[in-house]
Amino acid sequence: MASPTPLLKDELDIVIPTIRNLDFLEMWRPFFEPYHLIIVQDGDPAKTIKVPEGFDYELYNRNDINRILGPKANCISFKDSACRCFGYMVSKKKYIYTIDDDCFVANDPSGKQINALEQHIKNLLCPSTPFFFNTLYEPYREGADFVRGYPFSLREGVPTAVSHGLWLNIPDYDAPTQLVKPLERNTRYVDAILTIPKGTLFPMCGMNLAFDRELIGPAMYFGLMGDGQPIGRYDDMWAGWCIKVICDHLGLGVKTGLPYIFHSKASNPFVNLRKEYKGIFWQEDIIPFFQNVVLSKEATTVQKCYLELAKEVKDKLSKIDPYFDKLADAMVTWIESWDELNPAGASAANGKA
Amino acid sequence: MASPTPLLKDELDIVIPTIRNLDFLEMWRPFFEPYHLIIVQDGDPAKTIKVPEGFDYELYNRNDINRILGPKANCISFKDSACRCFGYMVSKKKYIYTIDDDCFVANDPSGKQINALEQHIKNLLCPSTPFFFNTLYEPYREGADFVRGYPFSLREGVPTAVSHGLWLNIPDYDAPTQLVKPLERNTRYVDAILTIPKGTLFPMCGMNLAFDRELIGPAMYFGLMGDGQPIGRYDDMWAGWCIKVICDHLGLGVKTGLPYIFHSKASNPFVNLRKEYKGIFWQEDIIPFFQNVVLSKEATTVQKCYLELAKEVKDKLSKIDPYFDKLADAMVTWIESWDELNPAGASAANGKA
Repeated sequence: MASPTPLLKDELDIVIPTIRNLDFLEMWRPFFEPYHLIIVQDGDPAKTIKVPEGFDYELYNRNDINRILGPKANCISFKDSACRCFGYMVSKKKYIYTIDDDCFVANDPSGKQINALEQHIKNLLCPSTPFFFNTLYEPYREGADFVRGYPFSLREGVPTAVSHGLWLNIPDYDAPTQLVKPLERNTRYVDAILTIPKGTLFPMCGMNLAFDRELIGPAMYFGLMGDGQPIGRYDDMWAGWCIKVICDHLGLGVKTGLPYIFHSKASNPFVNLRKEYKGIFWQEDIIPFFQNVVLSKEATTVQKCYLELAKEVKDKLSKIDPYFDKLADAMVTWIESWDELNPAGASAANGKA
Repeated sequence: MASPTPLLKDELDIVIPTIRNLDFLEMWRPFFEPYHLIIVQDGDPAKTIKVPEGFDYELYNRNDINRILGPKANCISFKDSACRCFGYMVSKKKYIYTIDDDCFVANDPSGKQINALEQHIKNLLCPSTPFFFNTLYEPYREGADFVRGYPFSLREGVPTAVSHGLWLNIPDYDAPTQLVKPLERNTRYVDAILTIPKGTLFPMCGMNLAFDRELIGPAMYFGLMGDGQPIGRYDDMWAGWCIKVICDHLGLGVKTGLPYIFHSKASNPFVNLRKEYKGIFWQEDIIPFFQNVVLSKEATTVQKCYLELAKEVKDKLSKIDPYFDKLADAMVTWIESWDELNPAGASAANGKA
C-alpha cells in the first residue's frame, strides 16, 4: 500500500518542546518541512531559539503562555518538557505529533530511513482492536490479517486515538535502570504495531508520540512537573494513564510499536533520579488507582471523563501527598483553558458544571 | 545469554498428533532427538505410523486410548487433532511441547535455523508480566528491560504457564480468510515475545505451543471435535479461552510471539469451512462468556477452576446448542481422567466433590 507523502499536511501540527536551537530539524527536513511546527520554548523566555530556514512554525515562550492563559497559565509546567502540552492546546489541527529535540531519524534493518511521521499517521488512520488480542499483531497491515478464532464482530475495530512510537539506541529507562545499565542500547527493531488491550495500562513516553486531538486531545495533559513541583519525568506517564483509562471508557484505541526514532542522548541519571524518586514511590499507589477507577455512564466526552478523573484524583490520591490536590485542581484548570481556546469543542464539556 | 542444549531433556515431552508417517521429524532431528516423543495416532488404529530411526517415543492409537481410559475415552476427540490432549494427560513430565506434523524448521532473518523448542523453554522459564504492558516487549530478554514508568513492584513478574509460538509461511487463518486470501503468506518475522495482559483473551493455536503441565496441564483440554461432533478447528481455541481465564485467575502468565516454525501447507478451506462454520457463529457468544466469567475464591487449583468453568459452560452456553451440555460433561470427564492418570496431582482437585 503506497502512501502519498506528505499525508494530512493541513491537518497535523508537530509540537516540539525545547530550550535550544533546533538543529535536529535538519535531519528531519524531508519529512517535517511540509508540516506546521508548534515550538514550545521552555526556560528563559529572553533566549532566542534558532529554527532552521524553511520551516513553517509558531513559537511560544513562557511570556506567551502567561499572556494567553493569564492566571490559568499555572497549569502549564515550567522548566520541564511537560510544557509541550500547551502546544496541543493552541493547535487548531486534528492531529498532533510530538517529538523530543534529541531524537533523530532511525534506519530500518534494510538501512532505509524511517519516516516516523508517516507511520504514525498510518497508525492513527487505521482502526484499533482493543477487545481481543491478534497474535499476528496489527491485522490491518499488508501481509497480515485476523487469525483463526478472532471474532468476526470485532474485526471492524474502533477509532485509533493514540499512536505510541518507540526508540532505537537509548531506551527510555528510569534513573535506577540507567544507573545499573549505563551502556545498554536498544538495537532490536521489532517490526510490529499492536493495540494495547482494553483494561491494560502502559508507560506512555512523550518522546515520539502522535494522537488525534479531536478524539483525545483534552486528556493529553502532561501534568505539573519541573519548577516548583516535587516531581519530574512523570509528565508523559501521567498523561498515558489518563488517556488509556479514558480511551477504554470511550471505546477508542491506543497503538504502540512502529515507528522507531533514533534517541541520541541519555539524560543524566543522577539528575533524573532526583526528579523521579517520588514518582517511583507514588506510582505504586497511582497505578492501582488507575487500574480500578470507574468513569460514569454520564462521562460521554473526553472533557467530562477528564473532570471525573480529576475529582477521583483529589478524592483518592491526595492522601499520598498534597501535590495531588494541586494536580487535581490543575487538571480542571487545564480543561477550562482547553475549552476557552477551543470553543467549538467546548460544547462537549458543557455538562461539567 | 548462551543456553546449553538440550534444555530440560528429562522434563519435557513433545506431543505430536498425526495420521501419517512422521517424515517431518527428519528436519527437526538436531533439535528433537534428545527428547521423548508422545505420538497420538488419530484415525484408523490398524494403520502403522513410521517414525524415523533414532527417536525415543511412545505411540498411542485409538485402541490404546480406549483401553487406558475405558468409558471415559469419550472425552478424547477422534478424527481431529484435538486428540493430542491425550498425550498431555499420559505424560509424566513437567513441560509439554506440541507441534503439528506439517510444521518445519523456520529460518530467522539472518538465515539461521530457529530452534523453536529452545525458545519455548526460555519463554517458560522466565516470568511473565500480565499486569502492566512493557512497550519494549519481553523485559527479561538480553538488551531489553522494563521501561521508565513500569512499577517496580511488578518487575518480578509471575510464573509463565504457556508459551504460544507463531508461524511463517502459511498463517493460521480461518476458512473465510483462506478463501479470500488464498495466496497470503506470512513473511514478517517479528522479533518479539510478549505477555498477553491479564483480562485479555487471544486465539491460541495448537500448532506450535508449549506449556507447563504442572501449572496449567489440567486446563489444556482440546474439547470435543471431529467425529460425531458438530464442530472442528476450535479445539485449540477452546483450550486457549479456558487456560487464559484460569491463568488470569491464578496469577499465571501466557506469552506469545517467538519462536516461529515454518508452516508448510494450508489445509483445504472448503473442508475447513464445513468444520468451522458453527464455531464462527458460536464464538460470538462464547467469547463474551469467557470475557465475563468469574471464578470463585475457592477455585485455588487448576482442577477446581476447570470444574467451575465446566459448570458455567453448562449453565450459560447450553442455550446456544446442546453440544455445550455434552462439552461441559466431557470437561468433567477430562478432569476425572486426568486425576486418575496423575494421582500425585489429584489431591489438588479433591475439593471438587
